[in-house]
Amino acid sequence: MRQGRLAVKGNICYSTSIKDIAALEGGYLLAEDGRVTGVYARLPEAWSGVPVEDYGDCLVIPGMTDLHLHAPQFPFRGLGTDLELLDWLNTYTFPEEEKYRDTEYAGQVYAAFADALKASPTTRAVIFGTLHVPATRILMEKMEETGLISYVGKVNMDRNSPDGLREGTRQSLTDTEAWLRETAGFRRTRPILTPRFTPSCSDGLMAGLGEIKKTRGLPVQSHLGENPSEVAWVRELCPWARNYAETYDHFGLLDERTIMAHCVYLNDEEIGLLKARRSFIAHCPQSNMNLASGVAPIRKYLDEGLNVGLGTDLAAGADLSLFRAVTDAVGVSKLRWRLLQEEARPLTFAEAFCMATAGGGKYFGNVGSFLPGCEADILVLPEQRSGPRRESLPERLEQTLCLAGEDVHLTAKYVAGEKLFGPGD
Amino acid sequence: MRQGRLAVKGNICYSTSIKDIAALEGGYLLAEDGRVTGVYARLPEAWSGVPVEDYGDCLVIPGMTDLHLHAPQFPFRGLGTDLELLDWLNTYTFPEEEKYRDTEYAGQVYAAFADALKASPTTRAVIFGTLHVPATRILMEKMEETGLISYVGKVNMDRNSPDGLREGTRQSLTDTEAWLRETAGFRRTRPILTPRFTPSCSDGLMAGLGEIKKTRGLPVQSHLGENPSEVAWVRELCPWARNYAETYDHFGLLDERTIMAHCVYLNDEEIGLLKARRSFIAHCPQSNMNLASGVAPIRKYLDEGLNVGLGTDLAAGADLSLFRAVTDAVGVSKLRWRLLQEEARPLTFAEAFCMATAGGGKYFGNVGSFLPGCEADILVLPEQRSGPRRESLPERLEQTLCLAGEDVHLTAKYVAGEKLFGPGD
Repeated sequence: MRQGRLAVKGNICYSTSIKDIAALEGGYLLAEDGRVTGVYARLPEAWSGVPVEDYGDCLVIPGMTDLHLHAPQFPFRGLGTDLELLDWLNTYTFPEEEKYRDTEYAGQVYAAFADALKASPTTRAVIFGTLHVPATRILMEKMEETGLISYVGKVNMDRNSPDGLREGTRQSLTDTEAWLRETAGFRRTRPILTPRFTPSCSDGLMAGLGEIKKTRGLPVQSHLGENPSEVAWVRELCPWARNYAETYDHFGLLDERTIMAHCVYLNDEEIGLLKARRSFIAHCPQSNMNLASGVAPIRKYLDEGLNVGLGTDLAAGADLSLFRAVTDAVGVSKLRWRLLQEEARPLTFAEAFCMATAGGGKYFGNVGSFLPGCEADILVLPEQRSGPRRESLPERLEQTLCLAGEDVHLTAKYVAGEKLFGPGD
Repeated sequence: MRQGRLAVKGNICYSTSIKDIAALEGGYLLAEDGRVTGVYARLPEAWSGVPVEDYGDCLVIPGMTDLHLHAPQFPFRGLGTDLELLDWLNTYTFPEEEKYRDTEYAGQVYAAFADALKASPTTRAVIFGTLHVPATRILMEKMEETGLISYVGKVNMDRNSPDGLREGTRQSLTDTEAWLRETAGFRRTRPILTPRFTPSCSDGLMAGLGEIKKTRGLPVQSHLGENPSEVAWVRELCPWARNYAETYDHFGLLDERTIMAHCVYLNDEEIGLLKARRSFIAHCPQSNMNLASGVAPIRKYLDEGLNVGLGTDLAAGADLSLFRAVTDAVGVSKLRWRLLQEEARPLTFAEAFCMATAGGGKYFGNVGSFLPGCEADILVLPEQRSGPRRESLPERLEQTLCLAGEDVHLTAKYVAGEKLFGPGD
């Protein structure tokens, strides 16, 4: 966190609720000790003398939170998405993840991954590694260097995985404990328990992870209800469970510090359970399209008051940029509405923008907006277009996010008030 | 067309059929008088002495054809796609298109549009203007300067349009004749008859355009079966027609030089009619998602042997890049398969790549591949990534197209053997 005062000037846009985006042209965003104190049309007198970082006509928006992505899959993003989930895991993902027993390979990929994430619109991220402790430690070191704030998980998997990527149950738990001891010292990079998903984790492993969670008070990330074949498989694997969500909840793995990725296929009981536990849903629209998983009923989850953020799900989602996740979330919701002929209306741009910023940011505390008290995660977007048509500020925001590809060139980026990069770097 | 011999060296990928992509690392693509003579692993002896344009490790692929886009909508791409087609037209499109009575406004926008299209993966395009003759002439001048080969249409619309954007029937036909006389002199930019769509065109206007088509042997572009409300409206407007497609065919407007955009909702009769007429379908996946139109059954059209290419449909499609159209075509086909629980399998990357190159290219003749005899439209893509994972050439192609956003930076571009730009420009 940055100590002292920070004043940023520009065209400021941020969500004040799931439906509303506040916009102020040439406004001042003020922060003290890493937290927003307010947004003002003029610099308050008490701040005169504080140097203003003036970004002219640039857009200034909150940083975004990526609630779900797999760092070791960085090398093959944009590839192999002709398959569905389970075949894709066996054909592309598992063979790639086995390579991370090699710390040199891990170091090369994770350095490139961390650089790309630093340059992206993401200021906070919740990341899967592999099951390898040394490689996961390297990933955490690289993430720590970026200045981003993240959770990183050593993956646990003790069944239904290839030989080179399967732990013994006890070994998985012992390795997890060792990894937790070894990686306690990072400032911005925290560990998160990461049972891959129920098909990869025996009941014994889940029980052991539940114990570790309880003892150490750790957060958890996993996958839930991504694909019909996966859901059917879980039913076979856990005949004792009423539903997929219960295969986590039974072991104490669902609470308000838990993120479940996808949630395309949840029944009403599962929705009620996630609501009661106040767990987070990581909606990954590009991934769900690429792997033909379907479209999650996000309108329903929002109406139910569930916690929903966005994830890129690298590399089933090809793009590392959450800007793409925002527009994809809107797009696939329209196809769900049209193809399933549902009454639930599609998502709006404002709703998707809020999920990418404040929705996922909530997992990290008071993050993702510029309301007073929020941690000052700030993106400064370059002025991109010029032309005779004049757009309003909210229109510029929508257009900029929609047209920015993977190749986003941010003008500046701050995390909790600390400047990661800016003009002249 | 470029006279003489051209030799380009690089990693060459091109479709040899709808299913197959040929790939040759460090190959030679040879062309003579603007047409490909072949692709070779070594430079043939007869070509020794011909200077080779060596692009090292770059990908070399055929140019792409955008079968459907609206130049005057360039300023508001990425905006206002919270609406369905008919509301979107009235709220965003028509008010913007009215501005093109102002030739200064048209000049500014069309210059920016032409520059962007020149830099994009598109080498051939079929473009809607507005109903204004002077503005459409300006658009043709700007397109001619790019070196791209295109069809450009002055739009016809005499009903169900706002006052400032509605012609009298006779005036529309007279203006069309005047526009055709005025714009006969371009070398690369040809006129195409452009009834906007049936709701905007009275039977009398359609009949008049049919006459002009017959007399002058002109091609035609329009819209067909984009949205359920539009289809229902056409049924009301033309009670005499068996279906939407017949509202064009009845006036002689469907033949092998006709492009119909969208075709999301066609019945079997209409599919049979398009097949009999050998007309082209412009599949616009991003547009159909943005406007909640749906997903066109492209698998069915391919199985039926219809002519299908891709369109960006700027600005209902936000991205000007056909790379995005390729990945979107695959993505939305997966959601159609999953959500409608159809047996028809989703599109593959190879199929979508072929539609973007050879599929749309066929409208321009022998265009869109590197098989002998094809016109030498060539894109050279920069080497984008480096990392420890080694991809095959087809994998690199898929990954590059998937990860390239709007901000595509081509290394070089050729149209019919003529170099539009390259290194050092």
